[in-house]
Amino acid sequence: MNYDLLVIGSGPGGYVAAIRASQLGLKVAVVEKENLGGICLNWGCIPTKSLLKSAQVFEYTKHAADYGVAIDGDIKADFTGMVKRSRDVAGGMSNGVQYLFKKNKIEKIEGFGKLVAKNTVEVTDSKGKKEKYTAKHILLATGAHSKQLPNLPQDGKKIIGYRQALSLEKQPESMVVVGSGAIGSEFAYFYSSIGTKVTLVEFMPTLVPNEDADVAAQLGRSFKKMGMKVMVNSSVEKVDTSGKKCKVTVKTKKGEEQIEADIVLSAVGIEPNLEGIGLEEMKIATEKGKIKVDDYYRTNVEGVYAIGDIVHGPALAHVASAEGIICVEKIAGENPEPLDYGNIPGNTYTSPEIASLGMTEKAAKEAGYELKVGKFPFTASGKAKSAGAPDGFVKLIFDAKYGELLGAHMIGANVTEMIAELVVARKLEITGHELIKSVHPHPTMSEAVMEAAAAAFDEVIHL
Amino acid sequence: MNYDLLVIGSGPGGYVAAIRASQLGLKVAVVEKENLGGICLNWGCIPTKSLLKSAQVFEYTKHAADYGVAIDGDIKADFTGMVKRSRDVAGGMSNGVQYLFKKNKIEKIEGFGKLVAKNTVEVTDSKGKKEKYTAKHILLATGAHSKQLPNLPQDGKKIIGYRQALSLEKQPESMVVVGSGAIGSEFAYFYSSIGTKVTLVEFMPTLVPNEDADVAAQLGRSFKKMGMKVMVNSSVEKVDTSGKKCKVTVKTKKGEEQIEADIVLSAVGIEPNLEGIGLEEMKIATEKGKIKVDDYYRTNVEGVYAIGDIVHGPALAHVASAEGIICVEKIAGENPEPLDYGNIPGNTYTSPEIASLGMTEKAAKEAGYELKVGKFPFTASGKAKSAGAPDGFVKLIFDAKYGELLGAHMIGANVTEMIAELVVARKLEITGHELIKSVHPHPTMSEAVMEAAAAAFDEVIHL
Repeated sequence: MNYDLLVIGSGPGGYVAAIRASQLGLKVAVVEKENLGGICLNWGCIPTKSLLKSAQVFEYTKHAADYGVAIDGDIKADFTGMVKRSRDVAGGMSNGVQYLFKKNKIEKIEGFGKLVAKNTVEVTDSKGKKEKYTAKHILLATGAHSKQLPNLPQDGKKIIGYRQALSLEKQPESMVVVGSGAIGSEFAYFYSSIGTKVTLVEFMPTLVPNEDADVAAQLGRSFKKMGMKVMVNSSVEKVDTSGKKCKVTVKTKKGEEQIEADIVLSAVGIEPNLEGIGLEEMKIATEKGKIKVDDYYRTNVEGVYAIGDIVHGPALAHVASAEGIICVEKIAGENPEPLDYGNIPGNTYTSPEIASLGMTEKAAKEAGYELKVGKFPFTASGKAKSAGAPDGFVKLIFDAKYGELLGAHMIGANVTEMIAELVVARKLEITGHELIKSVHPHPTMSEAVMEAAAAAFDEVIHL
Repeated sequence: MNYDLLVIGSGPGGYVAAIRASQLGLKVAVVEKENLGGICLNWGCIPTKSLLKSAQVFEYTKHAADYGVAIDGDIKADFTGMVKRSRDVAGGMSNGVQYLFKKNKIEKIEGFGKLVAKNTVEVTDSKGKKEKYTAKHILLATGAHSKQLPNLPQDGKKIIGYRQALSLEKQPESMVVVGSGAIGSEFAYFYSSIGTKVTLVEFMPTLVPNEDADVAAQLGRSFKKMGMKVMVNSSVEKVDTSGKKCKVTVKTKKGEEQIEADIVLSAVGIEPNLEGIGLEEMKIATEKGKIKVDDYYRTNVEGVYAIGDIVHGPALAHVASAEGIICVEKIAGENPEPLDYGNIPGNTYTSPEIASLGMTEKAAKEAGYELKVGKFPFTASGKAKSAGAPDGFVKLIFDAKYGELLGAHMIGANVTEMIAELVVARKLEITGHELIKSVHPHPTMSEAVMEAAAAAFDEVIHL
């Protein structure tokens, strides 16, 4: 055997699993056909957050006078500069993973990996050269790619996915974004904030349809306020790319509408990368298009494991990392607890930001709980007022019977950082009363968490 | 009796206690001689955070090009505009308290309150008119004022305290700030960031001497990097205000140094407001200059209570609020738990921000613990890199024996929001391992908390 563990894919699932496995004494290699770090570092979480930071600075600059900063001159979004910064940050992070591999004595094998026999992976490099490697344990962490819809065929120029959206050569004047999940909403926000005329099309009745209804409604208000055209209950029927501009036909409840745009961004979801990695040949069981695994990410074939976007559960970087760690800890003979999929936070880095955890109010009601719901708006927060960020709220959902925290839903500045408190709170099974009695520092946005809990139990002070 | 509860002072201790008491069915009035909200809302937490937000926007604007924002023209700190915004935000918050009083049917009595007999407070209004009010319970929440040192006599013009520092008519060209606690450091940062030449003088060997040594060292580096002159182990011996500029004599370990400055800001601490409120007359016991109270803030005189800066414990707004709530809940017959003074967070809103909780490494060692210390620098955080905020770190201190979290010390962007997670974590007695296994969302600064915990137990991924 060449290795104890061979990982296919170096995204936040694969590279984190590799490092943890090396820490635990395994001899590890990772197969990767592109840059280390996967989509997350190179074409996802990191470069988008860089662009969104640029958008934030641009917003502050535009509103500088409100804060007592006088700018005597023109302010312009330098799109090329923003993209360059974003690529540089992503490149730096990818180099960081390279450093971590070296430090942890993890080998990088360049190429596309495929399971070909028990304990055996065949790697095809960019020149087509094939080589076989053996390992006691093989971990599939191949991630996902942008979903292709038949009426939105991505040509990479006019109809694009997230990769192209991160590296356009010039800022489009107008853009139709299809799909308002985290990816679609973040791009819609970014482009709208720097002056692109954005239309956001969502098939469901609200934006960010997986979020709590109140959060979705607030995002809709904020997006409209910034000048974005928001179309819910709508679908893109076809795109005519034959002319200079795209002609986008959108079906709404009131009939069809034609929209012209330079670019159409398809953000209708992602699909796991399962093709050509040897699943059929090795008879690895799948279920609803994803690989079937147990609590420790073991597939039905001994010695083969799978984590991240190719298994069930939310397709999020932090989930993939957590799964990878649990998987290799189990392989190394440790005794990790299975992941609690009911306590996974989800963030959307628009402005206002969105963060959520656990059940929405609707889901909790449908599950039969009697609820105590507390909501605290940032308009009543001294810190939010000081920061000029009064939009949004914290909403907490408790089970009325035992005071258990069932869900947390936030929208506003900084909430993507604030949600970690609730992850810990729910992990340790906090009650509403304990949360009310946790002394939050003043003045912070985080006080709104304590106040929302107090609101649920009729003890709120600042409302 | 006129009232069930009469509160003297409407700061974050008094007004919060009044609202909670009203919720619990008590008939409440609050005596206040100035604006509602006390120092915190009017001359402390809130207006300083407004100025610091202006400083942040100014910083972003100055470095806009780094983020791909092109400004073709001059950028200037409009000091008057900044101060005006700060005063407006404070005014709005004070009006908010007025609204809350109305909503909760709390009477405001204008004037200076003094205990004159059992259950009796005499209020002197601004015209000198005196009136007596009776209440079953009287809560003293009179707060504190800037400490006067004999060699730094505040004249309000050249040698000033925090009030004047919040409302100067024009930006000083140069300033000496004496004392580097939260107040001194925040003003030093603010004025330095908008271009005032600031010298920060600290008597102790490090800045922010109550913070963990690593945090203090980082703040010193950051302050020096921004061009501030930092003098530790130094004290101001005298200030000559006879000329146009102040001549400040600073005693250092190497001898005396003369510094010229427009303004000297004294930020050497605060003193409780205990004069003239009837303590001696009513024989209310004090201890080391503060009112002696039990776990429920009862003084030695029946029916008289005290909270906030006039009792022992940290002089922080959130502490005063928590004390006020506990005090009136007990009065109303509820059964609140006493406040855990070992789990109070403290924030300093400089840039980088500082947040801390529990024991410093030094204190934990001196207490005889065997430690596991984990530190995670933001240079290794993808979110910090994306945000252009790589300065600082999270440091967590665990008891090696049981894995108990003894202290959390952070410096960096956003840490004042991140500390709430640790408050909850410690309240629920988290272990290091549980913190490592709490899935933090990616990419966030808060991941650094999980990574610092992992670092303490040799499981860190990104280092």
